[in-house]
Amino acid sequence: MKVKVLVRPKAAVLDPQGNAVRDAMRHLGMPEVRSVRIGKYMEIEADGENGELESRLHGLCRDLLSNPVIEDYELLKEKPAKRRRSK
Amino acid sequence: MKVKVLVRPKAAVLDPQGNAVRDAMRHLGMPEVRSVRIGKYMEIEADGENGELESRLHGLCRDLLSNPVIEDYELLKEKPAKRRRSK
Repeated sequence: MKVKVLVRPKAAVLDPQGNAVRDAMRHLGMPEVRSVRIGKYMEIEADGENGELESRLHGLCRDLLSNPVIEDYELLKEKPAKRRRSK
Repeated sequence: MKVKVLVRPKAAVLDPQGNAVRDAMRHLGMPEVRSVRIGKYMEIEADGENGELESRLHGLCRDLLSNPVIEDYELLKEKPAKRRRSK
């Protein structure tokens, strides 16, 4: 089982790191940038694949991988299917 | 235009932060975890939407948002469509 976890700051939370990157992008030739929010990205591989494992993963996402006071997480299961090809 | 940028360590590069999280997950009741890789996640909003903007975005992903020696990046364009609902 392979999952991706996205952790992002909640909308109401200030993101000074993102603001710094936004300003840097504006100075480096991209004045169109309106906002940048920075979070974490994790790829987790685990043996087995069942709902119980997934619910434990959700628990760890809440308790270890994110800070629920200021962050939201998203758990994406990766399908072992072939990739869609863009035109 | 709203894009998501994923920056992850290249497969050949050691990820000590990921290994620390893997060990922590194993100790917190998830011995099935085989590997964890940690990267960055960015949500960027910019005014306008065209290929030239996108190619400049790719340039900044390479030059500012990632270190191409040890990291790969992925730029995902977000479609303003409705979300798929899970069962």
